[in-house]
Amino acid sequence: MTKFQGNTKDGTEPLPAPPPLARERIPVQKSSVCSRSYFMVVMVFFHVYILNVIALLLYVHYNNASNAVGSDLDFTSRTNNHKIAEQLNTEPPSDTRFTRNVYLPRIEGIRVGHVQKVSLAPGKMHEMRTLSLKPLLFEIPDFLSEEECAVVVRLAQLKGLTESQVMVPEGQEELSQQLNLSPEEIFHLLDLNQDGQLQPQEILTHSRVRDGIWLTPENLREIYDGLKVDQDNNGVLSMEEFGQLNSDSFQRYLLQYGVKKSHLVRNSKHTWLYQGQGAHQVLRELRNRVTRLTRLPPSLVELSEPLQVVHYEQGGHYHAHHDSGPVYSDTVCTHTRVAANTSSPFQTSCRYITVLFYLNSVEEGGETTFPVADNRTFEEVSLIQNNVDLLDTRKHCDKGNLRVKPTKGTAVLWYNYLSDGKGWVGEQDEYSLHGGCIVTRGTKWIANNWINVDPDYQRQARYQQLVLQQQESQERQQDMNADEHTGNHQEL
Amino acid sequence: MTKFQGNTKDGTEPLPAPPPLARERIPVQKSSVCSRSYFMVVMVFFHVYILNVIALLLYVHYNNASNAVGSDLDFTSRTNNHKIAEQLNTEPPSDTRFTRNVYLPRIEGIRVGHVQKVSLAPGKMHEMRTLSLKPLLFEIPDFLSEEECAVVVRLAQLKGLTESQVMVPEGQEELSQQLNLSPEEIFHLLDLNQDGQLQPQEILTHSRVRDGIWLTPENLREIYDGLKVDQDNNGVLSMEEFGQLNSDSFQRYLLQYGVKKSHLVRNSKHTWLYQGQGAHQVLRELRNRVTRLTRLPPSLVELSEPLQVVHYEQGGHYHAHHDSGPVYSDTVCTHTRVAANTSSPFQTSCRYITVLFYLNSVEEGGETTFPVADNRTFEEVSLIQNNVDLLDTRKHCDKGNLRVKPTKGTAVLWYNYLSDGKGWVGEQDEYSLHGGCIVTRGTKWIANNWINVDPDYQRQARYQQLVLQQQESQERQQDMNADEHTGNHQEL
Repeated sequence: MTKFQGNTKDGTEPLPAPPPLARERIPVQKSSVCSRSYFMVVMVFFHVYILNVIALLLYVHYNNASNAVGSDLDFTSRTNNHKIAEQLNTEPPSDTRFTRNVYLPRIEGIRVGHVQKVSLAPGKMHEMRTLSLKPLLFEIPDFLSEEECAVVVRLAQLKGLTESQVMVPEGQEELSQQLNLSPEEIFHLLDLNQDGQLQPQEILTHSRVRDGIWLTPENLREIYDGLKVDQDNNGVLSMEEFGQLNSDSFQRYLLQYGVKKSHLVRNSKHTWLYQGQGAHQVLRELRNRVTRLTRLPPSLVELSEPLQVVHYEQGGHYHAHHDSGPVYSDTVCTHTRVAANTSSPFQTSCRYITVLFYLNSVEEGGETTFPVADNRTFEEVSLIQNNVDLLDTRKHCDKGNLRVKPTKGTAVLWYNYLSDGKGWVGEQDEYSLHGGCIVTRGTKWIANNWINVDPDYQRQARYQQLVLQQQESQERQQDMNADEHTGNHQEL
Repeated sequence: MTKFQGNTKDGTEPLPAPPPLARERIPVQKSSVCSRSYFMVVMVFFHVYILNVIALLLYVHYNNASNAVGSDLDFTSRTNNHKIAEQLNTEPPSDTRFTRNVYLPRIEGIRVGHVQKVSLAPGKMHEMRTLSLKPLLFEIPDFLSEEECAVVVRLAQLKGLTESQVMVPEGQEELSQQLNLSPEEIFHLLDLNQDGQLQPQEILTHSRVRDGIWLTPENLREIYDGLKVDQDNNGVLSMEEFGQLNSDSFQRYLLQYGVKKSHLVRNSKHTWLYQGQGAHQVLRELRNRVTRLTRLPPSLVELSEPLQVVHYEQGGHYHAHHDSGPVYSDTVCTHTRVAANTSSPFQTSCRYITVLFYLNSVEEGGETTFPVADNRTFEEVSLIQNNVDLLDTRKHCDKGNLRVKPTKGTAVLWYNYLSDGKGWVGEQDEYSLHGGCIVTRGTKWIANNWINVDPDYQRQARYQQLVLQQQESQERQQDMNADEHTGNHQEL
């Protein structure tokens, strides 16, 4: 301002005032008025110009941001653009509902054997090979370095591991009591092929889910004989024969025998390692790499389960299972239960993705088996046939469709759920059935990262908002505490 | 400008010139100088401001446009946003290269049996059911109305149909001559399992591709006997035995016998119907519906083959085949050949998608078979085993994995190529193998729409630019003709 005024006067003497004229306006300091108006005009236009540039830049920024980031949730990625999905998604947004602005990308499998390059850490490219399309399954060698594997094992050992399955779990009757089912209704539920009789595989399929003891077809025949259930000795149970059984007859019979670890569904020890803020650098880095690998919003990954580290001794196994269950209309996810106002008896862990890391190379055995990978069809009952039980990872691992050899540092990733065709999580992928084959020599260390997503978008959104609010209120509390502290300090 | 000058002078008398001073610059018309500087400043800032607003608006527009529409080609859709693909696409753009800004969306299959709603025509929703994932195959009932089916059949009849395969094609030796292969090299190419012997299925697989006559395993045995080729009578040919055969021995032997229509690969009549500007409304509408169904850029669909209408009489068939061949590094597409500076002997039709319409409901037989759909693996040789030839649609249609019943108005769509993982066309999908089962009662009318896309993006882009330039020059020519005409008119 001073400089500007100085410039106009610079090097020129003030003019003598011209003789006053009747019809002229006050011509006092003509040059000063002139420069002030000049200055005003310049400044006004300059400000208008700057404001408009800022407004336009904000518009550009907002326009891009609304394409890339959800506005009501901390989902920070939108890799797949689902315009069609948006068109199809005709659900009207209401006050309590979250409008869909997050779409979960899925990695393209292309075909078995397809290799794609992925960037997971700065300055390094990884190769990701498609192992199967059903389930969508990938293998990424050298996901972890030798040192990182050693750190994770060491951290797990420091924390201490516990038996993955201690004994036959109790309170298993609750579900059927909650559902209030009669023996007839249970019979019809078990009778998967609806032929009015219970085949051994129908009993086996059920019992494994229910009480965690792994019955073999031979065990079942022993039990039938011991309890004298199959009176006509035809190998199948009629409604009448089934009705005479107490619901926990099998369990009581087995407990008489004494249950060994090798009779259980899983025979391993495990622990959980926290990966959030302040966790060990290797665990944080692992989570970041998983986020980049899955291409999912970081918030989804951050709010998922901690890292599970599992240790199988020689002879350890995990029979074939699904990491997460099927979704019915009233199924509740464990992680979003707080956001669901329901007491539905159907609950599952809603593990959208499993990322499994091999922390050592097993001497012999211990493969991860996917018995029905890329099968043309999936039929639960046909998994147990002619005394060959494809679910049994102690006896029949060699007969499954696909086995992954445990190699130190390698990660495998698969989807436990299909897409819903609208960019969100859909039905359970039954083909994601997998197990850990028996470790025949040496021991086996693995770790699991599960990405939890509720197939109900609304519930996932509500849950994330609740977490966000909680975090904010905690921060406010901390701020208030800090203020009080500052206040006290000032008073002193 | 004149108005502005007028304003400054308005109502004020010109000031008398002040007495000249030695150190002062000419102070003539002070107020005029002042308003002129004011005017200059206003105008300069106004122009700078306007120019900047325009520049920013252009930036916003360009930014949006580059996300939505290709700028160098008339690809008008970009449904899939492949940011990752763009990151992976590290090919540097050069003067003659087209930067990738078009990405081909693929319909999601989710799982066999999945049903999704699609909007193909105003005021009507269609249901699209996933029939298989390998190939990615969908069925859309009521794609055409009864009347539309009748119109297409009538138009084909008016145009006239010709035999789809008249006789054994000639000049088939060209390829091996071009490739300059010795009998040893041919032997090793045919010996798919590399066991040093030619099994019957290795001969059959080759001969069908080569000369269009459908040899059955029985035919082959007859020929071996007739030509006394298999001297040790072990059912397979050694290098020595093969060397004694003239390359067209098989053909000449067959011609002696006389080739019936039922001995050919296909036994049908067909014609082509133009669907471009000015075509029958039903055909135009059909193309529009196909564009909406495939979600591909309209220009790609518009530049594809005309509609093929096929008529099978009772007893008609089309043995299992691929609509489009595999892609090698030097494979040329028929439709973009003009844009390829090569004389490569490998040429295929590059039919990315097949849309097949059933124009009538066949009384009995005539299903479309996909013998290896969703098979766990694909092995060409294992298709012919133990006298069961899965490729034979006259004998073994019932043994394939999937058959679609011909129902009037229904469309089926499948992809003949996989994705390349970067939003473009990749490898041939071997599982897209299909055929027309023998029509056992009645006749069969179908139509095919193929969407041609070059797996080489650069060639497809060059081709489309060539077409565009041609169209423009034609328009210019028309304009010039019009101008000349106007000129003549003025002279009169």
